[in-house]
This record gives sequence, structure tokens and C-alpha cells, in this order.
Amino acid sequence: METITVALGARSYPIYIGSEIFDRAELYVPHFAQKKAALVTNETVAPLYLDRLSNALRAAGVDVVPIVLPDGERHKNWQTLNSIYDSLLRNRCERKTTIVALGGGVVGDLGGFAAASFLRGVPFIQVPTTLLAQVDSSVGGKTGINHPLGKNMIGAFYQPKAVIADISTLNSLPDRELSAGLAEVIKYGLIRDLPFFEWLEQHMEKLLAREPQALAYAVRRSCENKAEVVGADEREEGERALLNLGHTFGHAIETAGNYERWLHGEAVALGTVLAARLSVAVAQMHPSLVARIESLLRAAKLPVDPPALGAERYIKLMSNDKKVEQGKMRFVTLNDIGASSVGFVELSTLIRLFDQSDRTT
Amino acid sequence: METITVALGARSYPIYIGSEIFDRAELYVPHFAQKKAALVTNETVAPLYLDRLSNALRAAGVDVVPIVLPDGERHKNWQTLNSIYDSLLRNRCERKTTIVALGGGVVGDLGGFAAASFLRGVPFIQVPTTLLAQVDSSVGGKTGINHPLGKNMIGAFYQPKAVIADISTLNSLPDRELSAGLAEVIKYGLIRDLPFFEWLEQHMEKLLAREPQALAYAVRRSCENKAEVVGADEREEGERALLNLGHTFGHAIETAGNYERWLHGEAVALGTVLAARLSVAVAQMHPSLVARIESLLRAAKLPVDPPALGAERYIKLMSNDKKVEQGKMRFVTLNDIGASSVGFVELSTLIRLFDQSDRTT
Repeated sequence: METITVALGARSYPIYIGSEIFDRAELYVPHFAQKKAALVTNETVAPLYLDRLSNALRAAGVDVVPIVLPDGERHKNWQTLNSIYDSLLRNRCERKTTIVALGGGVVGDLGGFAAASFLRGVPFIQVPTTLLAQVDSSVGGKTGINHPLGKNMIGAFYQPKAVIADISTLNSLPDRELSAGLAEVIKYGLIRDLPFFEWLEQHMEKLLAREPQALAYAVRRSCENKAEVVGADEREEGERALLNLGHTFGHAIETAGNYERWLHGEAVALGTVLAARLSVAVAQMHPSLVARIESLLRAAKLPVDPPALGAERYIKLMSNDKKVEQGKMRFVTLNDIGASSVGFVELSTLIRLFDQSDRTT
Repeated sequence: METITVALGARSYPIYIGSEIFDRAELYVPHFAQKKAALVTNETVAPLYLDRLSNALRAAGVDVVPIVLPDGERHKNWQTLNSIYDSLLRNRCERKTTIVALGGGVVGDLGGFAAASFLRGVPFIQVPTTLLAQVDSSVGGKTGINHPLGKNMIGAFYQPKAVIADISTLNSLPDRELSAGLAEVIKYGLIRDLPFFEWLEQHMEKLLAREPQALAYAVRRSCENKAEVVGADEREEGERALLNLGHTFGHAIETAGNYERWLHGEAVALGTVLAARLSVAVAQMHPSLVARIESLLRAAKLPVDPPALGAERYIKLMSNDKKVEQGKMRFVTLNDIGASSVGFVELSTLIRLFDQSDRTT
């Protein structure tokens, strides 16, 4: 097992990365304020891991309240959040009760926002069981729910007390979700870590074959990158925005697909392709790198042909995104692989980009 | 105008106290990240003050989005909060848009929690227009909504950028609400400020007559006390709990009255009487002080006869309160006027207290 620290002063916390560690009670109990925990998970993850974790914690003397949610992004809403509050209150959870989120990004976002807002904040531990959650959403304290008018519109920055990333839980992950997680892994290479990008180019087959060593390294490098960025800019007032590479395009693609056509990571991959093309236009990225980036995404079994929605639809969908400031559109672009920046882009540039993209697809 | 600072490091903020200051745009604009503000208020306050503030801000070049909520504690719920999100999104409010809460405690709690959770947090300014909000709820960052299973169960600690307490807005306050606010004013004297308690004993008539000098002094001393407590213990892990004197009893009384029978401040006054009696039993407070405390509450036109709900009902209602830890009941008690502490109280002691109280009423 390895431990990475997210350095945030009094709110610093460890990320434990290893195999067969998610039911080790000694990783949890030192972070508890009282021996009571609500385990928030979903109906897909519960049959796989809930009993093992519950039994391990109960054996350590912890009073366990299981809360099983329906599975899926479309349940990341107020109704599901409220069902968590109901369970917490009915089971007399208190200010010192810890909420443990056992599952993927949706469970982490819901469990995290429940922890941020129940009794104005209770302790919280993330136990991500998908690659996407292990490398991205479980680290950094972004929590929240969707609103009918937009994704992640309601939420909080609320840091966990610990993250427990168990590589062995990835064995139960469908191939498609493993690939979706790799989109965020590749992102770290692109925005700030050329050696990692090169490592990914060399080890993609091993990752897809779920070789534990390779997965553990990919999760560790991803978490190290994320921990550094979040430690420097917790509330996304600067550098943290770089983590949104491909996400403004990606959210538009997700929304156009009604959150059913594409997994989040797939939409991010498609958005990354658009961001790469944009980078050639506005950030002097060498044109040959677009193919190199597409090639790695393709090797990860990710889609690389953005849907031809048309410039108007893309711009309308993106302008609902929270990254609009005073009517301008802000994007993360690449100067090179491993070097990124944030800047404002003219609508005319975007229109040309989408017109070209539509012709190529 | 006087300025008090709530010292919380990077999150420090000023409380401006004065007369006819709520529409001075220069108090707002320096705290804005962009010249756009959503003014959250209610249907009672809007006809009195919304136009004046909107016009003043618009004259300073600010894009104003008015959001008028229904009035009353029973609207402090998810539905009303969601209507704020809807208005913010429909009016394209962004991360840098400031939410201004113009009104009493309910508006401040709702507007504050909307600010804490919209886009994971946007800037926020409190403009309290009731005495209760000026001396208590607008300062210190407690925000939230009620849940069908309990009051203030959902929320966040989220500090404003500034508090603008305009004494002149108290002129529109019904007498009953002025008195309710005085319950929280008296609380500061009781828990930590004997000279202020004595000043209140001498100046209660002037406060009820709304003499501006007296009101300004009472608001200032209350805010100074609250700012000191919050600065030392933002998240209520220690000293801040003292501010809950009378509140555990008070919440039970409010709930029993279905949030209609008593105003919050009235319930706090009744809870303070019970807390004073409890203090004689468990904190060696001199018995004569109960009458002195009741006398000041009565002078403030506050109720002093707690409803005879019976020990069983009281205990059941209080155990729904968030101040339950590991099955014990935690109370603030007084050792003397101006000296308070927090401790655990046995159920048998509470039963005796309620039995006595029922006999005296």
C-alpha cells in the first residue's frame, strides 16, 4: 500500500492506494470521530462490496448504517440526496457520524455533498470503486448534484478525511468504464506530466489487461498530480481549472446525449480531441500532436470522433456550463503535451473549429 | 457608521452598523467579484426595501437580479431553495455573481445556503432587516434549511463577504419581532457579558421605544460578542456552542408549536428560562438569578412561562435536536450572569426539571 497526502493545512488527508485494502478497518477507524458510520453506496456496488466493508467495520466495533442508492448519473439529484438525509436522520446519525461513500463518481458526489450539508458538515471518507473515481472525482473535495438546468450546478468544496483507493475493486469494472477512467488518467499527462503521458503510450495494453502493477502506478501518478494541483488551488481560482481540459466540450456532448449516450469519461475523451484541435488554432500546439493524442485515446478504447452537433448547438450547450465569465468562453488549451494554460476564446474561432470538426466526421 | 471585524483569517469580513446605510452602494461594490448581484428577499421585505437597494446598485452599474421568496419559517425548505437556484440559473448568474440576502433570519439562512451551494459557492452579503438577524443569524456563517424531520438539519458553515446592519430598517419591524430579537441580545449578556446584561436592565425601555442610539449600541455589543466567539471557534467545536443557551429547549418548544405558536426568539426566551432553572440544579447558579433573568425577559415583552408539555414529550423533541452526542444530552448552563459552560445532563435531572416547571406553570 502507498500513501499520498493532499496538503491542505488543517484539512490535509491521505490517499491510500493498494490492493485488497478497502475492508481494512484500521484505515477507517483512526479518522472516525465516533464509532458510527453511514455507508452510502448503490445497488450495483452493494452486492459486491457492502457486506465485506460492513462486516469489517462492525468487527471493529463500529455501528454501521447502510444506505443503498439507485445506480446512475440520472439519480444524482435532489431526490436521491434527500433520501440520504432521511436515512441519516431516521438512523439518528449525528455530527460526529462519518459518511463513507463506497462506489463511483456519482456515489462520491452524492455522499460527499450529503456529508458537506448534513448538520452543516459531518466527516467523510471516499472509497472509490471505479477508475474514474480513483484517479479524479474522489480526490479534491468537489461534491454535488445535478440540477434540471445543468450538471453539478449545486454542491460544495468539501474535503474527505481520507481516500481509500483499492485497485482490486477495478476487477469488477466493465471494460467500457475502465476506458472511461483512462480518459482522466491521460488528462494528467496532457496538462502537466509528459513523462506520464509517454509511460501511458507504452503501457496502455497492460492497463487494459488490468495488470495490478500498471493500474496501481497509473492511479498513483494520477492522484499525485491531482493532489499537487488541489493543494495549490483548492477552490479552482487558478491552476485547478487546468483539470477541466476537454470538460467544457465534454459536458456539452454529455448533455446532447442526455447523459445516456456517453459515459462521462467518453465525453471527456471526445472533448479532449476538440480541445486538442482548438489548441492548434489558438495555443500554437503542433498539429501533429492532435494525431498523437487521438492515438493514445484510441489505444485506451475511447471514442475520438466528436458528434457533429453543429457550432450553434455546441455553443448553446457550452454556455450553460459554469465556465462562462462575463459572456466569454474560457477553455483549457495545450501548448504542448504536458503544458497547458487557460484562456478566453472568441466565438468565431469556436465556430470555425466546429465547422472543421463536422467536416472531418 | 461603525465597523466590526469578524476575524477569520482569509475569510475575515466587516459588519457595518449604522442608520440609513442599507442602500449605500459603496458598501457593497468593493466586495463584488463582478458587477452582478442576485438580491434574495421575501414578499414582506420587498415592498419596503427592494427598490431602494436595486436602484442604488443599478446606479452604481450593477446588474441586479431580484429574487422574491414567500415569507415565513415554513418556507425555509428545499422547495424554496430550489426556486432560488432556478432564478439564478435562468438569469445566468455565474461563479462571481454575489448573492445579497435582504431580510430576516429565514432569508439569510436560505440566501446563505444558496450561496454556499450554487456552483459550489458564490460570494454572499448579508443585509439583515430584523433585530434577530442583525444581532445573531447574519453573523457567523451558519446557513441552511429545515428538513421534515428537524430544523436546520441541512446547511453549511459559509461566511459572508460583509454584513450590512441598518438600524433604520428596524422601524418597520412589528413589536413582537423586536422583542423576539431581544431574546438573542439578552443571551450575549447571559453567556459572557455581565456589563452588557446590566446595561440592558437599564435601557430596555429605550430599546422597546426604538431609540436609535440604544438600538445601535445593542446591535454593536451583540455583534462584537458574536464576532469574538465565531472568530475563536468558527465551526462550533468548542466555545461557539455557548451561543446555544436556551436553544435546545427552544427548538423543542418551537417544534411542539409547529413553528407557528412561537417566534424563534420567543421560544429562545422560554428555553432560556428552562436553562436558568437547569443551571440552578446542575451549575450552582444562585437561585435568585432565575427571577432576575425572567425579569429582564419580561421587560423585553418576552414570554417566560414554558409550555407544560411534560418531561417525556420535551425529551423526545429535544433528542431530535442535533446537540445529541452518543445518547447524552448536552446543554449550555450558567454559573452566573455572564459566565457559562457546556456539559452533559442526566435524563433524570431533566425529568425533575420539567416536573417542577409543569407545577409552576
